[in-house]
Amino acid sequence: MNTFDKEHFNVEVKNGCFDLPFELQPETIAIQEAVKVILKGLNEDINREGIKRTPFRVAKALRQGTRGYKQKVKDFVQSALFPETGLDDGQAGGVGGLVVIRDLDHYSYCESCLLPFKVKCHVGYVPSGGRVLGLSKFSRVADVFAKRLQEPQRLAEEICSGLQRWVEPSGVAVVLQCSHPHYDGFVEATVTSGSGGFEDESSELWCEFLSLLKFKLRRDVSLEDWCPFVIENSSKVSDADSEMVAAVVSILKALGEDPSRKELVSTPTRFLKWMMKFQNVNFEMKLNRYDCKLKERKLSCETNIQFWSMCEHHLLPFYGVVHVGYYCGDGLKPLERSLVESVVKFYGFKLQVQERMTRQIAETLSPQVNGDVIVVAEAEHTCMISRGIEKFGSSTATVAVLGRFSSDLSARTKFLESIQKTE
Amino acid sequence: MNTFDKEHFNVEVKNGCFDLPFELQPETIAIQEAVKVILKGLNEDINREGIKRTPFRVAKALRQGTRGYKQKVKDFVQSALFPETGLDDGQAGGVGGLVVIRDLDHYSYCESCLLPFKVKCHVGYVPSGGRVLGLSKFSRVADVFAKRLQEPQRLAEEICSGLQRWVEPSGVAVVLQCSHPHYDGFVEATVTSGSGGFEDESSELWCEFLSLLKFKLRRDVSLEDWCPFVIENSSKVSDADSEMVAAVVSILKALGEDPSRKELVSTPTRFLKWMMKFQNVNFEMKLNRYDCKLKERKLSCETNIQFWSMCEHHLLPFYGVVHVGYYCGDGLKPLERSLVESVVKFYGFKLQVQERMTRQIAETLSPQVNGDVIVVAEAEHTCMISRGIEKFGSSTATVAVLGRFSSDLSARTKFLESIQKTE
Repeated sequence: MNTFDKEHFNVEVKNGCFDLPFELQPETIAIQEAVKVILKGLNEDINREGIKRTPFRVAKALRQGTRGYKQKVKDFVQSALFPETGLDDGQAGGVGGLVVIRDLDHYSYCESCLLPFKVKCHVGYVPSGGRVLGLSKFSRVADVFAKRLQEPQRLAEEICSGLQRWVEPSGVAVVLQCSHPHYDGFVEATVTSGSGGFEDESSELWCEFLSLLKFKLRRDVSLEDWCPFVIENSSKVSDADSEMVAAVVSILKALGEDPSRKELVSTPTRFLKWMMKFQNVNFEMKLNRYDCKLKERKLSCETNIQFWSMCEHHLLPFYGVVHVGYYCGDGLKPLERSLVESVVKFYGFKLQVQERMTRQIAETLSPQVNGDVIVVAEAEHTCMISRGIEKFGSSTATVAVLGRFSSDLSARTKFLESIQKTE
Repeated sequence: MNTFDKEHFNVEVKNGCFDLPFELQPETIAIQEAVKVILKGLNEDINREGIKRTPFRVAKALRQGTRGYKQKVKDFVQSALFPETGLDDGQAGGVGGLVVIRDLDHYSYCESCLLPFKVKCHVGYVPSGGRVLGLSKFSRVADVFAKRLQEPQRLAEEICSGLQRWVEPSGVAVVLQCSHPHYDGFVEATVTSGSGGFEDESSELWCEFLSLLKFKLRRDVSLEDWCPFVIENSSKVSDADSEMVAAVVSILKALGEDPSRKELVSTPTRFLKWMMKFQNVNFEMKLNRYDCKLKERKLSCETNIQFWSMCEHHLLPFYGVVHVGYYCGDGLKPLERSLVESVVKFYGFKLQVQERMTRQIAETLSPQVNGDVIVVAEAEHTCMISRGIEKFGSSTATVAVLGRFSSDLSARTKFLESIQKTE
């Protein structure tokens, strides 16, 4: 969003990128070509209207999301070190002087699977040398390292040592709360790093830092379990997909990474295994239709059915819950939850648009319940945080109504109220 | 943050700004000169290290914060209208099709006083014409209008009509929850706008939209009370400040606004009245020192003392609470809260840096309590949301310790725990 960001501007000029517009830069073109190979491998028609520009959007998101490789901490810090008399010895002039910057929302890309993960970053430091760093620069420095292919512990260490080196305070501490998407929601991990006076985590300084963060540090997640796709059964993607693997390798190269780096060797196959779950399969739902006498019918609800899907515009996951309401006649068995779940799963696991998924679920269930059905999907879209707009905390709700729900406000209201109660 | 944002890029190229770097553009220079006049009027030394580059930072923040004047909804929307069969009549193909995008965090600048205010934006629409708008574009469109001098109701109407015109759905609804800074915290206002099927706010569609937002719409704030500086006694800024008024007028011009527009006529004087509260006055604190016998002393705390201050790096407010802890001997009266409050107020109301303010409060109170004092300041900085990094929800805590608190961990811990309890 930062049109006037001098620092980025300089980086671009230095690297000569302004010689070619973004669309024509070889890295952009390489990623686009690779994405086309992947889309074809997923049985998609790459000329379909909705995904025609997906390769370009993916290239833009990925290059933007890894721009940290071209950035230097020094460039952000140098102009924002402010002299502050009274903070001139190692203990901030004897006043302690601990400064804590809390709750900086960032995202990074997982080096093991290429999915974006959320990072809530907290930094503590004790100024020294009679100067303080402008508050916004802590976020800038975190971003330099977050906008790369990462894993949480290294990210914490790089932010910490970057600040230690260029700000030269008497100590820096970093706490990151990270969330990695997985089918059941998120894998959470909290990592820490400290330098100078914060080297020993049992020290008084750490103790104060943590008490100002106002949360208890939990270390119950092993970092080995961090990326859920690493521990999944590691059977190889079939040989038929070697072209797709080569495509992902070329993406890694275009981002400025070395695909033979130890941590990245299995990344292409992991990424593809995840993507393959969203293949455009033609699977005929076998639903058991049943007759229904139009007697007095009551509202039945299946709420909070979890789903995962893949935004076809950015090849980034969106996830959330689906709620289904319908009218069920007397003497008729309501739909089994497992049936509704399988319909949700079927329409979720493909390249999708939330609006379409909602409608498809409604249209598929409609004949099973004599036409009266309402479907609400509520989702968070990774593409809303891991691209230019970076809107943390936003969510999208979509509604599809058929039959009686189209015209009967009280029926809709009753259903929407029942959703709120179940949360 | 969006180095690769093609749309912004194009706007810049179209306006020929790349002919001159940002620093040398006449608008940037005009704002910088005006800020120098204002700083001098506040009795500041404009060559002081901490504020030397403040004019540049203010110019950057203001131009960035009002870039919406140069943006067009059309440019963001056109490339992101995706064909979606099944949503082709006025009621989204008969499936209702309401789409709700919730909790988009933005900020805007108040046209009455030039302070940034927070905007939580929610949009609902019913697609038509067989196409949907990419979700991130709702945020982009909101930004086009938020990044101008605004007031909440007009902002809501402009977002609504911008979407209606360029997306052509069967209806659009916008709800904005806005927070304007004031001395006692914030003035909150919720505003709405609707078009097409959402024109009537008592309609079924609105009802559904609101139930998916999951909050009750409150209309208990009159929009006339919105900007607290409008209703303040409107005595004129003294004639001596006519040069400062002219400076603010030149800022409005540089942002592309017409200073004679009805809503902007009093803006310069309101802005200056607010700024004058943060003048660098030399006021000698008259504190009543008293002797203290060094007997058994107990920890006294004054917590949650509200303060407002002005970040000297960006001339943007930061606000929060100060907590003070000290040891008070037997038989000695503890400090009166009003005394602590006046010290906090004195060091708050000036161009400041949070680290310095915390230290100054500690050093000022220290002789009153025989040297043992701890001060914690917790604040939100407007400059963290209303500039390039836009980190909503982040906060900063600073600590200053003197005397016994420097060496006695258990004393510090006891105090920090007592803070947590009082929240």
